[in-house]
Amino acid sequence: MNGKFEELKHRLAEVVDLYRVGHLLDWDQQVVMPPRAAALRAEQSATLERLTHERFTSSEIGRLLEDLRPYEESLEADSDEASLIRVARRDWEKACKIPSELRGEMAQAAATALPAWVQARESSDFDSFLPHLKRNFELKLRYIECFDGSGSAYDILLDDFEQGMKTEEVRVVFEELKRELVPLIAEAKANPVDDSALQGDFPVDAQRKLNLFVLERVGWNPDSWRLDEIVHPAAYSFGTTDVRITTRYADDGLESLFSTLHEFGHGLYERQIDPALERTPLCTGVSLGIHESQSRMWENLVGRGLPFLRWLYPRLQREFPEQLGAVEVDEFYRAVNKIQPSLIRVDADQVTYNLHIILRFELEQEILGGSVALDELPGAWAARMEEYLGIEVPDDRRGVLQDVHWSGGGFGYFPTYSLGNVISLQMWERVREAIPDLDDQFEQGEFGALRDWLRENVHRHGSKFTPQETLERATGSHLDASPYLRYLKEKVSELSGAAA
Amino acid sequence: MNGKFEELKHRLAEVVDLYRVGHLLDWDQQVVMPPRAAALRAEQSATLERLTHERFTSSEIGRLLEDLRPYEESLEADSDEASLIRVARRDWEKACKIPSELRGEMAQAAATALPAWVQARESSDFDSFLPHLKRNFELKLRYIECFDGSGSAYDILLDDFEQGMKTEEVRVVFEELKRELVPLIAEAKANPVDDSALQGDFPVDAQRKLNLFVLERVGWNPDSWRLDEIVHPAAYSFGTTDVRITTRYADDGLESLFSTLHEFGHGLYERQIDPALERTPLCTGVSLGIHESQSRMWENLVGRGLPFLRWLYPRLQREFPEQLGAVEVDEFYRAVNKIQPSLIRVDADQVTYNLHIILRFELEQEILGGSVALDELPGAWAARMEEYLGIEVPDDRRGVLQDVHWSGGGFGYFPTYSLGNVISLQMWERVREAIPDLDDQFEQGEFGALRDWLRENVHRHGSKFTPQETLERATGSHLDASPYLRYLKEKVSELSGAAA
Repeated sequence: MNGKFEELKHRLAEVVDLYRVGHLLDWDQQVVMPPRAAALRAEQSATLERLTHERFTSSEIGRLLEDLRPYEESLEADSDEASLIRVARRDWEKACKIPSELRGEMAQAAATALPAWVQARESSDFDSFLPHLKRNFELKLRYIECFDGSGSAYDILLDDFEQGMKTEEVRVVFEELKRELVPLIAEAKANPVDDSALQGDFPVDAQRKLNLFVLERVGWNPDSWRLDEIVHPAAYSFGTTDVRITTRYADDGLESLFSTLHEFGHGLYERQIDPALERTPLCTGVSLGIHESQSRMWENLVGRGLPFLRWLYPRLQREFPEQLGAVEVDEFYRAVNKIQPSLIRVDADQVTYNLHIILRFELEQEILGGSVALDELPGAWAARMEEYLGIEVPDDRRGVLQDVHWSGGGFGYFPTYSLGNVISLQMWERVREAIPDLDDQFEQGEFGALRDWLRENVHRHGSKFTPQETLERATGSHLDASPYLRYLKEKVSELSGAAA
Repeated sequence: MNGKFEELKHRLAEVVDLYRVGHLLDWDQQVVMPPRAAALRAEQSATLERLTHERFTSSEIGRLLEDLRPYEESLEADSDEASLIRVARRDWEKACKIPSELRGEMAQAAATALPAWVQARESSDFDSFLPHLKRNFELKLRYIECFDGSGSAYDILLDDFEQGMKTEEVRVVFEELKRELVPLIAEAKANPVDDSALQGDFPVDAQRKLNLFVLERVGWNPDSWRLDEIVHPAAYSFGTTDVRITTRYADDGLESLFSTLHEFGHGLYERQIDPALERTPLCTGVSLGIHESQSRMWENLVGRGLPFLRWLYPRLQREFPEQLGAVEVDEFYRAVNKIQPSLIRVDADQVTYNLHIILRFELEQEILGGSVALDELPGAWAARMEEYLGIEVPDDRRGVLQDVHWSGGGFGYFPTYSLGNVISLQMWERVREAIPDLDDQFEQGEFGALRDWLRENVHRHGSKFTPQETLERATGSHLDASPYLRYLKEKVSELSGAAA
C-alpha cells in the first residue's frame, strides 16, 4: 500500500509544481513582464493550465485514489496521509467534470482580459472592456454547465473559492450585515471624525521605509518573501519558502501601510503551513474566506488597533514630522478608523466595506439570473451605490471597472471578502482569550505570540480540513456574524463618542 | 495535409510555451526569487523539464513528422513550413534518445547547484562546490551514453550549443588563434596603454542613467524588454516581445556599459526574429556561436569602436566630469581597448579573452578524457593560467569558480564564445561593405541601419537554417578566423603605435 501512496504523492507533487508555476506566470505578468508580451503570455498560461489539468485528471491518479480507499480507512481521519487522499479525491472528482480544453480557454481569456482591464480602467472606458467581460462570463457559463444539476449556478461559482459554502448561507449573513450596518453608517455620518491628520503629503520614499520596518517586525524577511509595487496589491505563494506580496503607494495618505499589512496577513498564512505538507495539494490556504480573515486581522484588528499604533506612532512621527508632529496618537487612531461612504472598495472603511461586497454579490446573481445584462452593469452599479451608500459614481474607473476580479473570470469571489471580515472577529475573540496580554505585546512591537497562535490553530493545517472544519477547530463555532457586529458597534460608538 | 501540418504546429507551439516557461523559472530564480525557495524551485524546474520533454518526444509528434514527409518535399526547402518540419524532426530524433527522467534530473541538479555555486564563489570554497560539479558531470556522462557511438563525447556536448560543429573544427581554429595571439599579447605587453582614465570612481547611479540612455538609442525599450541587475549578466527571451537582459555594476570602472551592450546584442537577435516564426521551435537564435557573434559585435565592434565613442563621449564626460572631464576621447578609446592579461574571463580584453576560452575548452576535454580529475581542477586551472597568460591565480573565486556554466552542467558551452568572436568579424566585414557610411551614422548616434542589416541577414531566420548555413547566408563563407585576426592585429598595432 505504501508504494501506491508514494506513487500518488509523487504524481500530486508534480501537479502542485505545475500549478505553482502557472501561478508564477500570473505574478510575473502582474509585476515584471514587459507589456507587449501579453498575447504570448496568454498562450503560455493556457498551455500550462491545460497540461496541469490533464495531468491531474489522469486515470492513473483516479485509479490510485480508488486503490487507496482501504489504506485511507485504516488511518486517523485527521492524519496528513488520510487528509491527502480525501482532499485529492474530492478535488480530482471535481476537476474531472471540466474538460482540459475549457481550462485552457479560461486561462487564456483571463490573461488576455487583464491588460484590457488595466487599459479600460485607466481611460474609464467600460465599452472597451465589455467584450472581454462577455468572453469570461460565457466561459463561466460553460463551466457551470459541466456540473449538471449538482447545485445552483451561484453555488457552483462560490464553491471554487469557499468550498462547501452555499449561496443561501451567505445571503442570510449578508442580510444580517445589511440590516445592522445601515444604522451604524447613519450614526457614523452624524458624528464625523476629523481625519485631517491623514490629509497631507506623505512622501512615498518614507512610506517604503516605514513599510519595510513594520514588515520586518511582524515577521516578513527577504529570505522567503518579496515585496513589490504594482497597481493591484495582492499576495502570491509558490511554496512555503516563496511568498510574494505587492503594495502600491500614493503620496496623499497612508493606505499603503494597511494594505501592506493586509497582504502580509495572506502571505503569513501560506508561510506558516506545516512544511510536512510541502508539495502536496494540502499546502495552501483552505479558502478565500479563511484567507481573508487573516489579511483583515492584520490590517484592521492589529494595524488599525490602538496598541499597535501606540507602538508605531513615534516612528510615524519621525518619518512624517510635518504631517504628524503635532497630532496625538488618539487623533491619528480615530482618523485611520474613520467611517465614511466612499467609491473604492479597497479604500473603504471597515463598516461600509461590506456594502461594497453585498452590491457585487447581488449584481453577480442578477447577471447569472438574467435580470441584469453585462452591458447594463455600469448603470446598475451606480444605482446601487446611490441606494446603499448614498454616493454618486462619477465614472466607471471609480465604479464598475475598479476591481480586477471579473477580468479573470472571478465571479463568486467577492463574498469571501465579507466572510473574511466576519471570521476574523470570530478568531480574534479566541486570540484575545488565549493571549491575555496581547495589547501589551503589541505596544512593545512584539507579534510572535499572535503569529504562533495563528500557526498552531489555523495556518499549519493548510487545506487538510474543510473551511468550515478549519473555522470550527480554531474557534469552536460555525460562521457567526455576531462577534464582528459587536466589534463594529463598539468601534462606531467609540468614534462617535469621541467626535461628539 | 494541411490539417496534419496545423496539428504539428499546434503541438510544437505547446512545447515551445512549456520550454519558455521553464526558461522563465531560471530567470526568476536568478533575478527575483527569494533565496530559500531554491529547493522548491529545483523540483518545479525538474517537473517542468520532464514534462516538456515527454510532450515533445511523444509518438504523436513522431507520427506527424513521418506523415508530413511528402508535404515537406513538395515545399521550397527554405520556406517556413519546410524548415519547421525539418528542424522539428532533427530535434525530435535527438530528444528521443534522452529519457525524460534524465532531463528532469539534469534540470534539478542544475537548479540545486546554482545557489551552491553562488555561495562557493563568494567564499572562494571549491570543495563545497565539488559535489555539485561531480553530480552535474556524472549526469552529463549518462547523457553522453544516450548517443551510443554516434560521435566523440565532446562532439556530443558541443552539438547542444553549436549544432553540427565538430571538436576537430574548433581545435583547428583555436590552434590558429593560439599561435597568432601569443605574439600579439607579447607586443601589447611591451607597449602598455595608459588606462588611468578608467581608474576612478564611477558612481553607480550615473552608470544606470547612462546605460539606459545608450540602450534606448540602440533599440531597447520597456514595452518588450527588461533590464535587471544581478551577479551574472545574461540575456533571456521568452518570445520576441519578452526579452530580458541583466547587468551588474561596480563603481570602479565602466565595464557595465560594455556588458550591457553585450547582452543587448543577444537580446536584439531574439527580438528581431521574424514574428511569423513565433511559438515555433524556429523562434530562437540558431546557436550560441551565432548568438555570441551578435553580443560581441555590439560590445566590441560597436561599443569599443571610436565612432560610437565619439558620439557618446560628451555624455560620458557630463555624467563623470571628475574622471573624464580632462580626458580626450582618443585616450578613453585606447583605455577601453587596453590589452592586458587578467584573471576574469568576462572582464578580459578582446585578445586575451580567447585564451580564457581555450583553457576551458582544453580542460573540459581532459576531464572527459580522464587525464584531469574534477578535484584537480583548481590546480590544473592555475597551471594553465600561468602558462597561457603568465599570471598567478590567487584564489578559486578568481579561478575555477568564476563562471556559472559548469554549475548548470554546461560543458561544451565555452568554445562558442570564441567562435562568436570569430564570426562577429566575418559579419562585420559584410556590414561595412553594405553600409559604407556606418562610422558617420554611429557618430550621430544612429544604429537603425545596423539593426536592419542584422535583422535582414541574420536575425529574422531564427533557427530555420543550421548555424553553418546561417553564417554562409550572412557572409558567403565558412567559419574563418582571418577577419578576426586581421582586426586584432590592426587593433594591437594601432594601440602599440599610440603607446610607443
